Amino acid sequence: MDVKFINPFIISLQNVVETMAMIRLQTQKPKRKSSALAMGDVSGIIGMVGPQIKGSMAITFDTELALNMMKNMLGEEAKSISEEVRDMVGEMTNMICGGAKSSLAEQGYEFEMAVPVIVSGEHHTIQHKVDGPKILLTFVSEQGNAYLEICFDEQQ
Amino acid sequence: MDVKFINPFIISLQNVVETMAMIRLQTQKPKRKSSALAMGDVSGIIGMVGPQIKGSMAITFDTELALNMMKNMLGEEAKSISEEVRDMVGEMTNMICGGAKSSLAEQGYEFEMAVPVIVSGEHHTIQHKVDGPKILLTFVSEQGNAYLEICFDEQQ
Repeated sequence: MDVKFINPFIISLQNVVETMAMIRLQTQKPKRKSSALAMGDVSGIIGMVGPQIKGSMAITFDTELALNMMKNMLGEEAKSISEEVRDMVGEMTNMICGGAKSSLAEQGYEFEMAVPVIVSGEHHTIQHKVDGPKILLTFVSEQGNAYLEICFDEQQ
Repeated sequence: MDVKFINPFIISLQNVVETMAMIRLQTQKPKRKSSALAMGDVSGIIGMVGPQIKGSMAITFDTELALNMMKNMLGEEAKSISEEVRDMVGEMTNMICGGAKSSLAEQGYEFEMAVPVIVSGEHHTIQHKVDGPKILLTFVSEQGNAYLEICFDEQQ
């Protein structure tokens, strides 16, 4: 998988979280995901299908980051992963994927997004079922951490 | 959402689980999902995008059913939700969605499937972020239970 497929997601995630929640997330180089699974408490997952590309994206937040985002965005002090927090994660997932979609469209890669799905549960893990490579990125901040997992096969 | 969009998924789920794992799942009439969340231990999620329809499907298995399916299909006595069990859930999700895709195509509703994503974690919950109705089906058997959650908006 080419870095040109990955960078738009990284940039979009950082932009959306910084713009909406005033939290600056730092990341390192993308890694191929090995057997180790990222663990988080609330995730947004979205499928992508286009003539040249097919894949899925998952963003997993730990509770600390999800609650801090909620507080910064809406001024609400949620104490746990509530209905409102899950809604916010769904919106963020849509915005992050939408931002990457626009960048990739400019490069000539078109896809449509499916409906976001939100998963919650302490320390759940996420895994993409593909033959191709899976990329895992860890984003860190003083207000909590997030994990972006992405797989994006070029179709023949 | 028309029952014609839902029935192909119900039939495909029952067929795949009975054919592959020799477990007959009983279900009741589809319900609109309210605030109550289905809880399970391992789920397969898949996004769907087509010219007329857009949606996502999640199948959540409790540990009992997932391990019994594994035993019946592969003769392996797994004790917990392992890598192999997650792979099996990914395969089943693909087959179930693929079966429904074929039926719906015969009725003139075409869509492409994104990549399946597998979530594991005790008692996690799943929620679809859509404005339209979300349908929840509970499937029961003596060998464990499953939950099918589906949302399928007709596009304009």
